[in-house]
Order: sequence, then structure tokens, then C-alpha cells
Amino acid sequence: MMNAIGLVAFALVGSVKAIRERFDLLGIVVVGLATAFAGGATRDVLVNRVPLVLRSPGEIALGLFGVSLAIGVSAVLESPDDHPVTLVSDAIGLAAFATAGSIVAADAGLSSFGIVAVATINAAGGGACADILLDRPPFILLTDFYASCAVLGGGVFWTVTAVGGAESVAAALCAAATVGTRSAAVIYGWELPTAQRVGQALVWPRKERGQ
Amino acid sequence: MMNAIGLVAFALVGSVKAIRERFDLLGIVVVGLATAFAGGATRDVLVNRVPLVLRSPGEIALGLFGVSLAIGVSAVLESPDDHPVTLVSDAIGLAAFATAGSIVAADAGLSSFGIVAVATINAAGGGACADILLDRPPFILLTDFYASCAVLGGGVFWTVTAVGGAESVAAALCAAATVGTRSAAVIYGWELPTAQRVGQALVWPRKERGQ
Amino acid sequence: MMNAIGLVAFALVGSVKAIRERFDLLGIVVVGLATAFAGGATRDVLVNRVPLVLRSPGEIALGLFGVSLAIGVSAVLESPDDHPVTLVSDAIGLAAFATAGSIVAADAGLSSFGIVAVATINAAGGGACADILLDRPPFILLTDFYASCAVLGGGVFWTVTAVGGAESVAAALCAAATVGTRSAAVIYGWELPTAQRVGQALVWPRKERGQ
Repeated sequence: MMNAIGLVAFALVGSVKAIRERFDLLGIVVVGLATAFAGGATRDVLVNRVPLVLRSPGEIALGLFGVSLAIGVSAVLESPDDHPVTLVSDAIGLAAFATAGSIVAADAGLSSFGIVAVATINAAGGGACADILLDRPPFILLTDFYASCAVLGGGVFWTVTAVGGAESVAAALCAAATVGTRSAAVIYGWELPTAQRVGQALVWPRKERGQ
Repeated sequence: MMNAIGLVAFALVGSVKAIRERFDLLGIVVVGLATAFAGGATRDVLVNRVPLVLRSPGEIALGLFGVSLAIGVSAVLESPDDHPVTLVSDAIGLAAFATAGSIVAADAGLSSFGIVAVATINAAGGGACADILLDRPPFILLTDFYASCAVLGGGVFWTVTAVGGAESVAAALCAAATVGTRSAAVIYGWELPTAQRVGQALVWPRKERGQ
Repeated sequence: MMNAIGLVAFALVGSVKAIRERFDLLGIVVVGLATAFAGGATRDVLVNRVPLVLRSPGEIALGLFGVSLAIGVSAVLESPDDHPVTLVSDAIGLAAFATAGSIVAADAGLSSFGIVAVATINAAGGGACADILLDRPPFILLTDFYASCAVLGGGVFWTVTAVGGAESVAAALCAAATVGTRSAAVIYGWELPTAQRVGQALVWPRKERGQ
């Protein structure tokens, strides 16, 4: 269920970006589906599985629904990807994908870093892929507190299993941590600092003392 | 045979783009070979096979021939990638690669979407990869009626096998559909509409009524 | 040992680039780790293995050390990626990764081109991936004599094994050829010519004769 909401939301967000860049219809479909499925496909390739999306017809229907929604809605709304409904659905998708990535990685016997990396790639890889197709630096790496939520979710999953918790408990806590931090980030406008700001924070007191 | 023509044409087209961007010789070879082989390599990785190009020496010789041709010809011709011979060879390659992708996907037991997706990736993935290496948005996603031909070819392949046709018949019809639509697209300057034009077409009558 | 030096150097170089582009902390970590590990992960995916970095905790610690070093040092130095220590470590890493790629490719039974391709991808793929994340054309394809050293190293490895040499001898000569040519390229400012310069060199005498 969370997964289905996420697929529709991710495909919608990706398609809206492609519409804004005046891609043609195929381009819109490709960018939309890449946003929804590239993360999961990369996850499957990394653990040596044939990507689920190429085998199951159900998933792709949800992605195409998200793309259609984007084309229909973009005639009415100015920026449907900033709409509260989209933001909430996107946060749910981020949590669903981070959890799915953690479970697949743990089942494949990966290390702690492997779990966090695959959770993050599954959740944020689609958005990064879409940005590369649109020829801009992946926005999730630049300023937003977005992929960080998936990193945190993967870390929670690993911690819970490492201390002996059941996988279902780990999955629930991972999803909660991801959707919680992402919602808070949107509401309060959280951002990670750049190295320059970290440097400034460290250098500042010394400079003031000098004056 | 079609496959060989396609490899040479794709490597030529990719190399010419890299020459125009003033890449050095290694860059020209890398972009040329990526255009010819990245689609097929991605296809093989998706169905969990070691890429054919890394195992068979014959294929790579054709790719390197295309690169050499590009370097030799670009001293004489202004834009060898717009030459009719190149356009025809490129259309043949598109058809050969879409067909090869469909067959591999069907043999791997993928769903209908899986067949269309792998046919398209095999045919258009190399060009998209080259564009990313050249740091521009994949041109095949922007304005041209190019990848759409491979989508159509993959769809034809799946339809024929779904109604019980033999794989050889499906392959022949897939190749014919791809090369036919691509030739028509070049001759008549076909383009897919953008979402803006679709929106305009839908809104237009209403607006005129209002006046 | 060489591998460890290379991981730290690659992570450092990648992180410094991300710091300069004012990425946030997660972005710096992602670009740094991608520079260090994307080449090796691609190598493993191509030969159908689960990437080593997702399974072994030791490797990732070295990468994170390189990232921390970059953040710490960039407050003090202007451009730590041009520092002689970095350049030497980077050349050692290039050699270690080209050698590791050659060995993995040979063990997987790839063709001569497969060995050269996997050696080059393992050595230069991380840097190319980082440049794509930073939204610029891969610098290694543009002007520098960098990936060419890995191509040469892979060629040396294949030649030595093809004439019956032991794998350990091939590995040693591959590493020596890579680090040697890279050091010479840095010291003497080597560059590969572009197709334009090759064309000019060929056309020049004819033009002068005409005057």
C-alpha cells in the first residue's frame, strides 16, 4: 500500500519535471518511470536479481497512472509537485522504498554499510537518475534534506536487527523514521550544512577573538 | 548482418559527437564504443548475464571500425552523422538492437513491459549514455521520434508472441516496424508532441468559444 | 596496501570537488564514496557479483576516512586535490584499481577487450561517475592523460598473460605501467590530441605546399 502510493507519487514528480523542461510525451514517460523504478532496479541489479519491475505487470501500471496524472493535472495546476498531497505521498514513498531496500539488502547478507547504501539508492536513486536525464546535478545531493532521511531509515533498520530485533519491527521503525524526518524537514525547512558553513562555524570564534 | 551495420553506424554517430565537442582521442573512442555497446551491456546486466561485448572479440572490432571511420571522415565531411548513408545505417541498427533486446527479454521470461523496456534500452540506451557523457540531456528524450520506434518495435514483438506467433516472425515484424517508422520519421520530420502542445490542443476550442 | 591508499585518495579528490560546488554534507559523502567505489561496483556488476564494497566493512572505513580528510583539510588548504601528496596517492590508486580490474576480468574469462575495458572502468569509472553527479562532462574523457594509463595497464596485463606469463607478473607489470605513465603525464603535462589536431597535422603539409 505505501509502496503503491510511493510509485504513483514518484512517477508524478518525475513527469512534472520533464513536462516543465518541455520534453516530448515519450520523454515524459521515460523520466516519470525512471523516477519511480530506477532506484528499485539498481537495488535488484546490485544484489544480482532481475529487476522486479521488468517481471511484474502490476508495478508498471501504477507508474503509468502517476505519469497520466501528471499530464492531466499540469494543465490545471501550476506546480503539482509542490502540492501538499504530492509532498505527503512522496514522503510515504521515500519511507516505503527505504524499507524495501533495507529488507532486500539484509536478505542478501550485505554489511551494515550495504544496508544503508541500498536503502538510500532504492529511495533516492530514481530521483537522482531523473535529474541526470534532465541534465542537472542531482538536487537531492545539493541542498535538500531528502536522501538523508533514507540514510537514517537504513541506519535504524540495521541497528534494530543488529541488537536482535525482528525484521518486521526493524521495517516498521525504518519507515517511521524516514517518513517522520522527511515530514519534519519539509515543515521546518531543514537543510544539511555545506562544508563551507561547517568551516565557518569552526573558524568564526577564532576570527572574532582576533578582532 | 543488420547488427553489424548497426554497431558501425552507432559507433560512428557517437564518435562524431565527441569529435565536435573536441574530446581527445580516448574520449572519442569511449563515447563511440559507449554509443554502440552501452545499450546491449545494460540489457545483459538487467537479465543477469555478463555483457556479450566483454566476451566476444568480433563485436568490438566493428565498434572500433566505426570510430576510425568517424575520425577519418570528419576531416573530409562537415557533419557525417547527417549523411543519408549514416541515417539509413542508424535506422537499421535501431531495428536490429530493438529486435535483439526483445528476444533476450522474452527468453529471460520478462513481462510485456519488460520486453518493451529492454528493447528500448538496448536500442536507445547507447545514445542516451553518450549524451550523458557529453553532458547534455539525452536528445532522444527531447524532441526526436527515435526511441519511440524501438518502443513500437518491442510492442509489436510482444503482441505477435502473445497471440501465439513464432519468435522468428515476431522478430521480423519488430525489425520491420522499427526501421519503417524511423525512416518515415526522418523523411517526414515526425515529432512527438510535448505536454504543453497536448494541453493547448485540449484548451484551444474552449478558448475560442469564449471569444 | 596500494588499494587502501587509492581508496583514501579517490574519496578525498571526489569530496573536494563536491565541497567546491557547495554540496551539503550528504552530497560530499555521496560524491566522495562514488569516486572511490563506483568503479569497483560497476566492475562487480559486469561480472555478475554483488559489489565487494556492500559486503566488506573495511573498505568503506577507508572511503569515509578520505571524505573526513577532505572536509578537514579544505578548511586549511585552497586546493588539496592538486597537492603533490594527493597526486601521488591518486596515481597509486589508479594503478591498484586497474590491476584489480584486470585480475577480476581475467578470472571471469573475459576477452582481451573485456580485460582492458574492466580495468579502465574500475580505475576511471568512479571519477567519471563523480563528474556526472556534479553535472559536468567527465573530465577524464576531455583533456587529461588519465584513463589512458589504465587502458595501457590493462593492455599490459593481457599481453603478459597472453604470452604465458604468470598472473602475479602480469599484475606487477600492469601496476608499474599505470603508475609510471600517470606520473610522467603529470610531470610533463602529457595530453592526448583531439581529432581536430590529428586532422590539422595531416592537412598541414598539404596546405603549406599550396601556399
